[in-house]
Amino acid sequence: MSLQRRKEPVIYVVEPFGGSVRRHMPNLPLVYWDDAAVTRGDGIFESLLVRDGKAANLPRHAERFRHSAQALNLPEPPMHKWEEATALAIADFYGPAGAGDTAESPLEAKCTWTYTRGRASTGVPTAWVAVQEISDDVVAQRAKGVKVMSTPRLWQVAEELPAKTLNYAATMATLRLARERGFDDVIFTDPDTGQVLEGATSTVVAVKGTKLRTPAGKGILPGTTQAALFEYASEQGYRCKAKELNLSYLEEADSVWLVSSVRTAVRVTRLDDKKLKAPANAEEIRALIDAALAR
Amino acid sequence: MSLQRRKEPVIYVVEPFGGSVRRHMPNLPLVYWDDAAVTRGDGIFESLLVRDGKAANLPRHAERFRHSAQALNLPEPPMHKWEEATALAIADFYGPAGAGDTAESPLEAKCTWTYTRGRASTGVPTAWVAVQEISDDVVAQRAKGVKVMSTPRLWQVAEELPAKTLNYAATMATLRLARERGFDDVIFTDPDTGQVLEGATSTVVAVKGTKLRTPAGKGILPGTTQAALFEYASEQGYRCKAKELNLSYLEEADSVWLVSSVRTAVRVTRLDDKKLKAPANAEEIRALIDAALAR
Repeated sequence: MSLQRRKEPVIYVVEPFGGSVRRHMPNLPLVYWDDAAVTRGDGIFESLLVRDGKAANLPRHAERFRHSAQALNLPEPPMHKWEEATALAIADFYGPAGAGDTAESPLEAKCTWTYTRGRASTGVPTAWVAVQEISDDVVAQRAKGVKVMSTPRLWQVAEELPAKTLNYAATMATLRLARERGFDDVIFTDPDTGQVLEGATSTVVAVKGTKLRTPAGKGILPGTTQAALFEYASEQGYRCKAKELNLSYLEEADSVWLVSSVRTAVRVTRLDDKKLKAPANAEEIRALIDAALAR
Repeated sequence: MSLQRRKEPVIYVVEPFGGSVRRHMPNLPLVYWDDAAVTRGDGIFESLLVRDGKAANLPRHAERFRHSAQALNLPEPPMHKWEEATALAIADFYGPAGAGDTAESPLEAKCTWTYTRGRASTGVPTAWVAVQEISDDVVAQRAKGVKVMSTPRLWQVAEELPAKTLNYAATMATLRLARERGFDDVIFTDPDTGQVLEGATSTVVAVKGTKLRTPAGKGILPGTTQAALFEYASEQGYRCKAKELNLSYLEEADSVWLVSSVRTAVRVTRLDDKKLKAPANAEEIRALIDAALAR
């Protein structure tokens, strides 16, 4: 890790109906007390990886974002404005000289789009783009992998609302429990069938030889990074498929990964009380994801 | 309804660990971009009715609030500070002379407590009290009752997180759907058993003679107003019980009510395609709730 000073986050507010974008100081409050995000968690988001000075996998994020907005009956987001704000925020974050960027270790960043139903008193949605440093935890987990607790998901994602909403209180509570028990992350299973669903904020991918598998089933948010990986890996000769998977399948795989936009791919090194062996081809898998995100 | 000008909301920020409380202008942003309420819906709330210049049913709300905080592993809220902020906000809202209050129609208000995990960058919880006018919709529904759509709840409330969290995106989506179909509100049922669960933001109470019934079962948030009603009504000779109820029970009851703190009691005038007859004792039920809240 580099020793440079941490960079300030950059925020750009987006006019929800496509007007101007404007910079907002991150050390000033942004959201009003009566915003639906605050009173009801009534909003959506996307997290994107900024790599090589641009938002990776942007079209898939834009597509899911539009889809989430539609599911929540929010006005259709003007994506060209979101992309403009994203580009401006990234440019401001890096500064004119790409300061902090070195050839060996280009500084990555995390970009978040947030779009809420807005204030009760105005009815106008609230929307902003944030670009910030990637946390040390994320960097460490990429290198070291994660110990994962499996747990039945005792709530269901609403089938009629397949959106990436702000409603993560129960997920966060489960993550806190896992951390108290010495784990880094969680894989949810279906309480009725025991089938694997997804990570807390990631898609599960299992590798067996040249087969890549991700769980199929209800209540799984489609993963943008997993989609990019499967598309690219298929072209490289891997056989990629979404299929019902149980925990035994994960235990017997060559390797198991939690795949998400900012953390990219972290290997599961332990699943409950079972150590998962390090595969010979970990770097190959990682390189696949990097290549998939670079397109 | 009165013709007086609408009053400005009053906000008091509460120091989460029990320091000072301070007034915040409602027309200025309050919450930072990286607050867990905004990024994850990671927080809790209570809505209270302000009647006769004080927060009704306060001890039950305080108890549920503390319980919700515990379920989310938030630091225990210093309730005396929340009560202090509530009293200050109510006093400011009414002003020195109780302006706007008339003997025939004392101005009621809605008080909301919000308590979030706070900013990612500071780790300090965010907490505030808001007092505002009750919306015209609520006033109208008290008088006219509500048309209710029943619908299976296709998500479960996390059994391990029996807290009043900010995660209402799916509930709000269902309410929007109901309104598109000409209904005012929703009663959720268990998708497996068909048993009645609760309203979108209220507790269901059915009256048959001197029997008051509220649904028992998993995934029902304990209602503070229903609890106050049952305690008081029991003393008045009603037989009050939580029991499994199906939709037929509601259709055959003398009257069905959605009970919640600010709306108090609104009668269900239609359940799906069935008109529910007006009972002879509607005013009696309403008076019971008013008396229960006045203690």
